[in-house]
Amino acid sequence: VARILITSGPTRQYLDPVRYLSNASSGRMGRGLASAALAAGHDVTVVSGPVALDYPPSAAVINVTTTDEMLVAAAEHFPHHDGLIGVAAPCDYRPVVVAHDKIRKTGKPLVLELVETPDIVSTLGQSKRPDQWIVGFALETSDARFRAITKLQSKFCDIMVVNGPAAIDAHVTTVELLDSSGQWLATLEGSKDDVSRQIVRLIDERLVGTP
Amino acid sequence: VARILITSGPTRQYLDPVRYLSNASSGRMGRGLASAALAAGHDVTVVSGPVALDYPPSAAVINVTTTDEMLVAAAEHFPHHDGLIGVAAPCDYRPVVVAHDKIRKTGKPLVLELVETPDIVSTLGQSKRPDQWIVGFALETSDARFRAITKLQSKFCDIMVVNGPAAIDAHVTTVELLDSSGQWLATLEGSKDDVSRQIVRLIDERLVGTP
Repeated sequence: VARILITSGPTRQYLDPVRYLSNASSGRMGRGLASAALAAGHDVTVVSGPVALDYPPSAAVINVTTTDEMLVAAAEHFPHHDGLIGVAAPCDYRPVVVAHDKIRKTGKPLVLELVETPDIVSTLGQSKRPDQWIVGFALETSDARFRAITKLQSKFCDIMVVNGPAAIDAHVTTVELLDSSGQWLATLEGSKDDVSRQIVRLIDERLVGTP
Repeated sequence: VARILITSGPTRQYLDPVRYLSNASSGRMGRGLASAALAAGHDVTVVSGPVALDYPPSAAVINVTTTDEMLVAAAEHFPHHDGLIGVAAPCDYRPVVVAHDKIRKTGKPLVLELVETPDIVSTLGQSKRPDQWIVGFALETSDARFRAITKLQSKFCDIMVVNGPAAIDAHVTTVELLDSSGQWLATLEGSKDDVSRQIVRLIDERLVGTP
């Protein structure tokens, strides 16, 4: 039995009280992984951005809105877990200035200066203990293999799951798994619940209980 | 019996294949108004941005993603309707450049140039026939009354419904209604379904069948 922390869903970065930057991540893959991990007998904590779905009742769920909030919650809980599955799609840019009132339309262009938010998986990866493991997700639209290997290394992941934009807000997905030596482990395809069960099986075989 | 067109939910404006600008509009008020209008015997067409809820089965629903798509669909259907309820929260800025591939993080700030999208209610208002009516919605965070009167006039609305940011993604709401002469008609409070029924009753009394 492992204690597994899962980040799931999108985050939002507000420009003003109404408008925000985000993405269409639904939380479905996070819910699938939470269910599969629970079914395999693990304890599960989910840190989730705003989603329209419900996580399994036996998962502990922490709701957040922004990337900073997700990082704070994940960093607080990671030390008490054996592994992290970072399947969230945190908003990775935030506006430098957040307007207190709704920005008024003037008919003129609006220039928005954005800065990068901290990378959650990489930040937790830097502090992970030798007995902890991390499974990251990379969504790539080009050069997927090369970029995924780079991300796997820079984010200190033991397994990197690579998918494409077709996975966002979809019910089915195709993912490729890369191990920490840069070898392709598997290609998995099917419903997000099916793929989740296969990912948890691979985590069980390769990471759980093997410090 | 009137044929009522309802725009509902948010729209999205993509920066790249993954990231977008949007807002937290849930479509709940649009669903409430569709249900109330159907219950009052009207025919209802809904043009909706991406939402996680289902509209009543007897409404004709057209799904769109961007503000331009919402405008095109609404402009196509408005001539065949007696009135428009513009309760959608369309994204009113869009990036000038949409990246074909996912924008790569470089560690440096990202400057995003945004331009205004066309205003859907105002565009339809300019072309409305004397026998057609428009109910607009204004979400204000300050100077609500002054700004709402200005919007009512510039968008050619017969009634303007004014609410605040607390209404977004909420189950309850408080709205104030302004008629075309700039007089406050009513303050309505309650669940979005209750408030919707009261708004439809006011529309029936003041707009339906009174060209």
